[in-house]
Amino acid sequence: MSDVTQAPKQRSPIPPDTILIGKKPIMAYATAIMMHLQSGSQQLTVKARGRAISTAVDVVEVTRRRFFGGKLTVKEISIGTEVIGEGADVRNVSTIEIHLQKNQ
Amino acid sequence: MSDVTQAPKQRSPIPPDTILIGKKPIMAYATAIMMHLQSGSQQLTVKARGRAISTAVDVVEVTRRRFFGGKLTVKEISIGTEVIGEGADVRNVSTIEIHLQKNQ
Repeated sequence: MSDVTQAPKQRSPIPPDTILIGKKPIMAYATAIMMHLQSGSQQLTVKARGRAISTAVDVVEVTRRRFFGGKLTVKEISIGTEVIGEGADVRNVSTIEIHLQKNQ
Repeated sequence: MSDVTQAPKQRSPIPPDTILIGKKPIMAYATAIMMHLQSGSQQLTVKARGRAISTAVDVVEVTRRRFFGGKLTVKEISIGTEVIGEGADVRNVSTIEIHLQKNQ
């Protein structure tokens, strides 16, 4: 038996109160945010990597302006770098985390 | 004479201590940031719109990690929406501003 097994996907588990932005249409994520905040939660973190960072900002701006009319506040934004891939395929990818707070 | 003249480009003037990210390679902007901060200025704002938002985050992360080794701090990040274009071509575009501070 080889000890080189199929590499597990190196994704950290998505914590609760977090939405990870990918390649779906903006409205899919906007809907997910609204449903999350209508289910009783007061806060939410929108995360994205690489090219999806622009989409994450679009999602937050559309949700805030069109669906919450300013009753959703950006509390904090942080950026960073993650190392993804393995072996020869290792590369850095930029990340963003946008922390949202529903106004009372 | 028509009163519909060539619309002036609706770009607000770029303030000092600001770099606007577009479609150049990341290293072009990283170099611009380094030159700016080596010329005596202690702070700098990196701005971008639309798809260039992801590039702006890449530029900041590469500059911070590769060229400043942590001696460049992200002080604040803000996102917003700008209305661009005129007439039938009006549309919203997301924006980001990343405020950088050189450590003493």
